[in-house]
Amino acid sequence: PWRRPIGDASVVPPGCFLYLGLIGVLAFPLCHASTVGAAALAAARDAATAAAGARGGWAAALAVTTALRVAAAVAALGVTRALGARYAAGSGIPEVKCLLSGAYLPGALSARVLVAKAVGLPLALASGLSYGVMGPYASMAVIVSALVARLPCFPRLAGSARAQMMAAAAAAAAGIGATFGTPIGATLLTIELASATFPVHWLPLLLYTVVAGYTVTLWAVDLSGVVYFALDPPLAPTGALLANVALQAALGVACGLVGAALVGAVGWLSRALRAVVGPADAGRNVALVASFVAAHTLASWALGGVMWEPAQRVGLLTLFNSTARGRHPYIALPPWALPRPEPDGRASPYTATVTLAVLAAVKWVLTVASLCMPLPAGAFMPIFQTGAALGRGAAEALLATFPGRLPWLDARTYAVLGAAGLTTGVLQTVSVGMVMVELTGGGVSILSLTVSGVAAYATSQALTHDLFSDILRRRR
Amino acid sequence: PWRRPIGDASVVPPGCFLYLGLIGVLAFPLCHASTVGAAALAAARDAATAAAGARGGWAAALAVTTALRVAAAVAALGVTRALGARYAAGSGIPEVKCLLSGAYLPGALSARVLVAKAVGLPLALASGLSYGVMGPYASMAVIVSALVARLPCFPRLAGSARAQMMAAAAAAAAGIGATFGTPIGATLLTIELASATFPVHWLPLLLYTVVAGYTVTLWAVDLSGVVYFALDPPLAPTGALLANVALQAALGVACGLVGAALVGAVGWLSRALRAVVGPADAGRNVALVASFVAAHTLASWALGGVMWEPAQRVGLLTLFNSTARGRHPYIALPPWALPRPEPDGRASPYTATVTLAVLAAVKWVLTVASLCMPLPAGAFMPIFQTGAALGRGAAEALLATFPGRLPWLDARTYAVLGAAGLTTGVLQTVSVGMVMVELTGGGVSILSLTVSGVAAYATSQALTHDLFSDILRRRR
Repeated sequence: PWRRPIGDASVVPPGCFLYLGLIGVLAFPLCHASTVGAAALAAARDAATAAAGARGGWAAALAVTTALRVAAAVAALGVTRALGARYAAGSGIPEVKCLLSGAYLPGALSARVLVAKAVGLPLALASGLSYGVMGPYASMAVIVSALVARLPCFPRLAGSARAQMMAAAAAAAAGIGATFGTPIGATLLTIELASATFPVHWLPLLLYTVVAGYTVTLWAVDLSGVVYFALDPPLAPTGALLANVALQAALGVACGLVGAALVGAVGWLSRALRAVVGPADAGRNVALVASFVAAHTLASWALGGVMWEPAQRVGLLTLFNSTARGRHPYIALPPWALPRPEPDGRASPYTATVTLAVLAAVKWVLTVASLCMPLPAGAFMPIFQTGAALGRGAAEALLATFPGRLPWLDARTYAVLGAAGLTTGVLQTVSVGMVMVELTGGGVSILSLTVSGVAAYATSQALTHDLFSDILRRRR
Repeated sequence: PWRRPIGDASVVPPGCFLYLGLIGVLAFPLCHASTVGAAALAAARDAATAAAGARGGWAAALAVTTALRVAAAVAALGVTRALGARYAAGSGIPEVKCLLSGAYLPGALSARVLVAKAVGLPLALASGLSYGVMGPYASMAVIVSALVARLPCFPRLAGSARAQMMAAAAAAAAGIGATFGTPIGATLLTIELASATFPVHWLPLLLYTVVAGYTVTLWAVDLSGVVYFALDPPLAPTGALLANVALQAALGVACGLVGAALVGAVGWLSRALRAVVGPADAGRNVALVASFVAAHTLASWALGGVMWEPAQRVGLLTLFNSTARGRHPYIALPPWALPRPEPDGRASPYTATVTLAVLAAVKWVLTVASLCMPLPAGAFMPIFQTGAALGRGAAEALLATFPGRLPWLDARTYAVLGAAGLTTGVLQTVSVGMVMVELTGGGVSILSLTVSGVAAYATSQALTHDLFSDILRRRR
């Protein structure tokens, strides 16, 4: 009888729905526990800071929060080094890429690395560095899939490298999707992160695994109706389709350039740090992490505003949702650094532009340095925030330069497009746009996200490798 | 310097954005012209029918519409045979699958076949058979990409089979997506229709091409805010997550069984027809098409209701949106075929169940036979309608059997899930669920669509090949 081109392998093996469902379901509580742990640590840190502030004023509060953040980072470093071998630091996406390309990294898939990530990630987040969680959640879920493959009850999975690769891809999608409620975007993102070619018959299995985890999420935590980046008020359609499309393509090119520069800067700083602080040198690593966390804390505190929000997500929502116009400052710059006020004493209409440009530049530098620290953490969220400041800053600059003449230009839309566009420029994955559609509950136009995303992708790809491939390249 | 695993091929060639944009932009007016032409033909047919009805009553109207439908079908057959060689009949998706797997079918990509499809499709639709447009639009766009590749101004495209395959995939996505406003679903569907493995670096280019066409659509026709299957009133969340998920999985299994049976029936009927009516025999083909169109018209007229709506989309919207309960008839069955009325004279609570079951069965048979006719036409829309009747019928049966005890069961939701599920059961593409999300403007839960879609996919895959692979198999 007739067979499909690549034979039996493309037919879904019976029973795979059992282990894929188990992986999807197991990935969720693990990631959710990390989220809860991170929130508890941050709350404890901020309670201690507030208590110190009540007694000793702002200086005591700043000293306490800096000390606690440094302590959390050092603890994260200790856990990472003690349990994680060389595999627990970073986002783990480079390891996932290797795995899905067929490279076998046994050490990366152990229960020890899983514990190192699950414990180290909340500690790293409590340090307040420019970190996200998406990559670690994906790689934790992949380790879960490898551990499930060792169970005696799934002999077909245990005996087939192909089935394990498929399960790993499905797990990665589940780790991304179930935690943030973005099943479609997570599936597309996994396709793009995975490898050079994607076996088409994996697609339904990825969706199934994501949705298995997502169902448990809905059932256990009742996320229904929770939109991670709620756009409130909703973005209004603005008309001037072609003008907006052209401007969005230009923003995408800018995001591609800035993203490619970020990849290059991470590479340069990693090599520079490795020359000074070898990975084997525990003492110097502690000193490096501690001093950088202190510097990151002081810089964020000094700039204030969006930089000193309790969580990056809050700052991002400010950039997405603020309806304030050009005279609004997003960080607390000293008077000499702000544009000159109007003769009537009002702030300059370029205030938003300048504060957003400084925010984008500082966050870019802090993100580059954070990504070079040997701690487990993801890259998405700080890049989102940098890109949002970039996109909104560009729009505010145009609005301030041509006051009243660009009624079709909505600065909030450009903040969202900048966030997705810069992430695409760094990771070279256009499906970040689809993730953004789901994170905002369908609040942004797919057309705009695709225009700016593809422009960022093509620009970045013409200049450099994506961040994760570049990390892999340096490992050789 | 370091390269990606598969070398240069994965880097976007400069200039491809020019020809991909051109393909996306050209695909739209062509597909849109077919839509306009089909609407004009249907309007002329219905105006003539109404005029005849005003003079001669229902019998004259029925005679005139039957004659016009037969004439349209015979004209479609003539165009198809005169211009299309063997490639203009059917949906064209089997040819697209071949092409994207690397098989070169020069005759399938000529301007003659394009004209045969563009002219034959509106005529075939005017015949009132159980036909859709999605497949022909995708294959027309693919022919556009092949014609663009012959232009002298794109030497890189003309000289590279790889670039032409990529352009064909992007064109297929544009043909599906730009016409219905479903860019993400169209991209995913193209991945699934394409081939055994999908080159990951095509993804942004597919999205770009879809969006290029979509932008022109928005600009030229102002589709903004137009939702193809608007759910009005919106589906309300019903609670009882786990009960609904279990029932949705069961519906998916049923859709997989019915879909696999449809694939088998199309295969059986095609072989049987070919034994009696060889493709070379023009006279017998005219007789076959004419007699089937007459039978299809009379059967649809006799059943009335959803079957005799001016367009299948209208009937589908009735199935999706009707808030009528179990006593509502969806087709006009004679009293002896309906369940016995209540003692108080009201219709039986099983009226909706029985009429929907008959509708699903008749539409299934008519769809099978329509798909075996040698005319250019797509398969999605009639399968959508059959599945919607199936899903809504199953829900209405449960509601009538357990009155008042299933407040969490919404028959409208199950109509939408049945439509997507049966299509997945026939085509073995779960991304139909994503297309449905976009067609309904985000009105259905991704979770429910994935649950029923994956169940339909796995069931159908365990039993048979997908419809298009089965058509290819018979061609050998």
